[in-house]
Amino acid sequence: MPEKNSPGQPLVDIQNTRDTRNIAIDKVGVRGVKFPIAVLDRADERQHTIGDFTLTVNLPHHFKGTHMSRFLEVLSEHQKEVSVHGIPKILTALKERLDAESAHLEVAFPFFMKKAAPVTGKAGMMPYDCRFIAEANGSYDMVMEVVVPVTTLCPCSKEISERGAHNQRGYVTVQVRTKDHVWLEELIEMVEASASCGLYPVLKRPDEKWVTERAYDNPRFVEDMVREVAIALDGDERIVSYEIEVENHESIHAHNAYACVKRDKA
Amino acid sequence: MPEKNSPGQPLVDIQNTRDTRNIAIDKVGVRGVKFPIAVLDRADERQHTIGDFTLTVNLPHHFKGTHMSRFLEVLSEHQKEVSVHGIPKILTALKERLDAESAHLEVAFPFFMKKAAPVTGKAGMMPYDCRFIAEANGSYDMVMEVVVPVTTLCPCSKEISERGAHNQRGYVTVQVRTKDHVWLEELIEMVEASASCGLYPVLKRPDEKWVTERAYDNPRFVEDMVREVAIALDGDERIVSYEIEVENHESIHAHNAYACVKRDKA
Amino acid sequence: MPEKNSPGQPLVDIQNTRDTRNIAIDKVGVRGVKFPIAVLDRADERQHTIGDFTLTVNLPHHFKGTHMSRFLEVLSEHQKEVSVHGIPKILTALKERLDAESAHLEVAFPFFMKKAAPVTGKAGMMPYDCRFIAEANGSYDMVMEVVVPVTTLCPCSKEISERGAHNQRGYVTVQVRTKDHVWLEELIEMVEASASCGLYPVLKRPDEKWVTERAYDNPRFVEDMVREVAIALDGDERIVSYEIEVENHESIHAHNAYACVKRDKA
Amino acid sequence: MPEKNSPGQPLVDIQNTRDTRNIAIDKVGVRGVKFPIAVLDRADERQHTIGDFTLTVNLPHHFKGTHMSRFLEVLSEHQKEVSVHGIPKILTALKERLDAESAHLEVAFPFFMKKAAPVTGKAGMMPYDCRFIAEANGSYDMVMEVVVPVTTLCPCSKEISERGAHNQRGYVTVQVRTKDHVWLEELIEMVEASASCGLYPVLKRPDEKWVTERAYDNPRFVEDMVREVAIALDGDERIVSYEIEVENHESIHAHNAYACVKRDKA
Repeated sequence: MPEKNSPGQPLVDIQNTRDTRNIAIDKVGVRGVKFPIAVLDRADERQHTIGDFTLTVNLPHHFKGTHMSRFLEVLSEHQKEVSVHGIPKILTALKERLDAESAHLEVAFPFFMKKAAPVTGKAGMMPYDCRFIAEANGSYDMVMEVVVPVTTLCPCSKEISERGAHNQRGYVTVQVRTKDHVWLEELIEMVEASASCGLYPVLKRPDEKWVTERAYDNPRFVEDMVREVAIALDGDERIVSYEIEVENHESIHAHNAYACVKRDKA
Repeated sequence: MPEKNSPGQPLVDIQNTRDTRNIAIDKVGVRGVKFPIAVLDRADERQHTIGDFTLTVNLPHHFKGTHMSRFLEVLSEHQKEVSVHGIPKILTALKERLDAESAHLEVAFPFFMKKAAPVTGKAGMMPYDCRFIAEANGSYDMVMEVVVPVTTLCPCSKEISERGAHNQRGYVTVQVRTKDHVWLEELIEMVEASASCGLYPVLKRPDEKWVTERAYDNPRFVEDMVREVAIALDGDERIVSYEIEVENHESIHAHNAYACVKRDKA
Repeated sequence: MPEKNSPGQPLVDIQNTRDTRNIAIDKVGVRGVKFPIAVLDRADERQHTIGDFTLTVNLPHHFKGTHMSRFLEVLSEHQKEVSVHGIPKILTALKERLDAESAHLEVAFPFFMKKAAPVTGKAGMMPYDCRFIAEANGSYDMVMEVVVPVTTLCPCSKEISERGAHNQRGYVTVQVRTKDHVWLEELIEMVEASASCGLYPVLKRPDEKWVTERAYDNPRFVEDMVREVAIALDGDERIVSYEIEVENHESIHAHNAYACVKRDKA
Repeated sequence: MPEKNSPGQPLVDIQNTRDTRNIAIDKVGVRGVKFPIAVLDRADERQHTIGDFTLTVNLPHHFKGTHMSRFLEVLSEHQKEVSVHGIPKILTALKERLDAESAHLEVAFPFFMKKAAPVTGKAGMMPYDCRFIAEANGSYDMVMEVVVPVTTLCPCSKEISERGAHNQRGYVTVQVRTKDHVWLEELIEMVEASASCGLYPVLKRPDEKWVTERAYDNPRFVEDMVREVAIALDGDERIVSYEIEVENHESIHAHNAYACVKRDKA
């Protein structure tokens, strides 16, 4: 077998060869890239966390392939800029380095808030799964997502039963587009205020009494949850569109209750 | 505490009370419902498998809640009809029983094909993750999805290396809308024919030699995979739109390579 | 490059060559093998489900490798025998075909029970994740596992609160060794009877009232759950050892409460 | 309903009441607790990451319940000490605060190493899933776990094929007990040196040529992988016992190849 690459010559660039199948590719790139990042939080501190990235660009029909290593290089060079303000720069860098017209970035990360118990004030760290989904394609588009675990207590169960009411952990996923800056913390607080009760990392007995009674006094179906969060988001002028999904891990069933509301205010 | 429900009287129907928040709900129902189902396959046999269902309807703004138990009742009554032909009946039943204008069904299930090794003919069962996503909302819409694991061998690695070429398991997800019946098996075969090589449950040594050489002779980037599958789907008149995603679990990286092409032929 | 394998000659059997590293391998084989199976249930019917198999044997130090395709062949030949009675035959076949002294089989599968609502009798299908773990190594050992989702209601929350009590879905995992036949259904029923309340696929309003009040009247910590299940298993002479794990998806926290009890009665 | 708790009086401590079922609980506590932590790495820097904790203690038969909030308090107070040296202090604190004889801690976390490409030296971050499993129960026991993704190239496929050889991503899980300090980085390097080739975050074309040829020149079955890692661990006197599991995501099958070796050197 002959040497495929002559010594001293650059290696063949297969990706750069001409493709004749005449099919443009909407998105091509890397997925499942884990990377340590720092996120700016409302308390004005850099919060260290781990991002799980998808980075893609479009590929015109006449190129055989993109250059995968460049996505990682761009990410390394911009790791300090994974923020609402920094992401547009990453997309611009991706478009330039990959010679593309559009670029997309998706990053999922756990985000922590210090949270104090409602009566004793005992504090701990609450984790929330968050995500930024951004696209530069002529114009710029950015979606923020938070998943907020809450307590939901069933209004029907409360009403028909002599004592007690079934309740459970529910997960509220909110995606928003905004025209002005909104903190992840603000979205989280809107959701928690809409629930039967928010969750807490540390609860002493006086706190547990408080959350139990608060949930009992504020029953919520999944239907109520999506509506209450929708009302909160409708009332915030910075938010221009949203999608709300609620999934209750019903304590009386092995399956979940689910509701969804989407709205474009424009 | 007084009796909330008088003896002999029906229990209060909270869900049915009037809601004044003026927010219609796009989708409400149940999710994560596991149910044994039978799927008709091309060999004209009922294949027993397990479905994971999401069932939802819309809810007009003036109702407080939907009736979750009815989704399960409808599913029980129609468990023999989880097929391309039977799903419209389930959606009609959901709309009637829930008094709704739109109904949605999504069911994910493992699907098996008997598959013979390419040289020795030794047969085994190959599993594929499939999904039907259907909606009745005035008109009827139905998407079929298959996830097909394949071998992909890197054209660049082959070209620049003196010996060998890195290859790996890749996952091709295809979603299609059709205007005529298409078997899941047909979609699976189109994808496998587009890959460096298909996967097999049982391979004896002569088969392993065959698949190794076949993959080496048919290198594919993720970009090639989406294009080859796109060409196959373009050539089938029954298919009216599609989305193809490929994710290679790169054997040289801890992250994946990804590509996506979407097309509406209409 | 010369032909590595002469025409008409069998292909080289690398696995069968002598290994000189002097390291015996405890277990070698295949994992993540999905296969349609039928499980015999107490209602004396074959229940069709999907198994996820790990099959391994030991490998003496002097062999370089095992023969992976034979595991799949054995599985294909014995697919009708995936039962408490049939598994020993599969292990014997593995030992013979792979020329091994020990063989192990692990199969996880969803198992369904028809279950009627407690008041209205409305029936549906309840799914349970089950597992058999078997080993033939001179003697024969077999562990049965069931994961039973239940309702747990917090005794502390009930006691200290003026109204209501937090409750949630909990998951009880039971592993047992037995000296006489025990149905999966029996283990499931023991666990459900020990909980604040069992879960149901379909609940109409009179049923929801019943399960809400039953849970309120039977509060259980994770500590109570493991103890109640332990008492039930202690009282059954067929069971010779057990491990019980309970994980409550606390409705007031983002984390879970956990307890574990292990006992060998012998 | 009367006030359950008199004003001014402390709330009833149900957990502290006497249990008469006579069943001691092996482990009780919290699971799935996400918490930001800092891990000391060999480059002598604090690495910020996210821990997923299980914290438990034993519970004598005469107590009804443990006090869940105290686990979170202990974790908050010791969050800077999640290290090989700090974990014994956390266990001691758990035993004291919970008045227990034994305490257990398990923490899983992603760990990053800066890694340079083999030819061009282009650097990026490689993620590894790690875990510490520790128990104080009279004596102290600690297990370190790393999961290292690698390339494995099939010796049989290489030998019998005219060209190419199937290869794939494999995952090597190593658990060790040591009598002297061993860095996670050292375990990772031992595993990568034993593989057909290590993985890299960034590979330019000269690097891709290098890793392709290196893997082709160093074929490894799962059997070879466990043996090579065993030889490396046998040769390190600091390591007193180990368990090695390898799972290859075979590029020619939908299932995985698996091997396991366990050894107690003592």
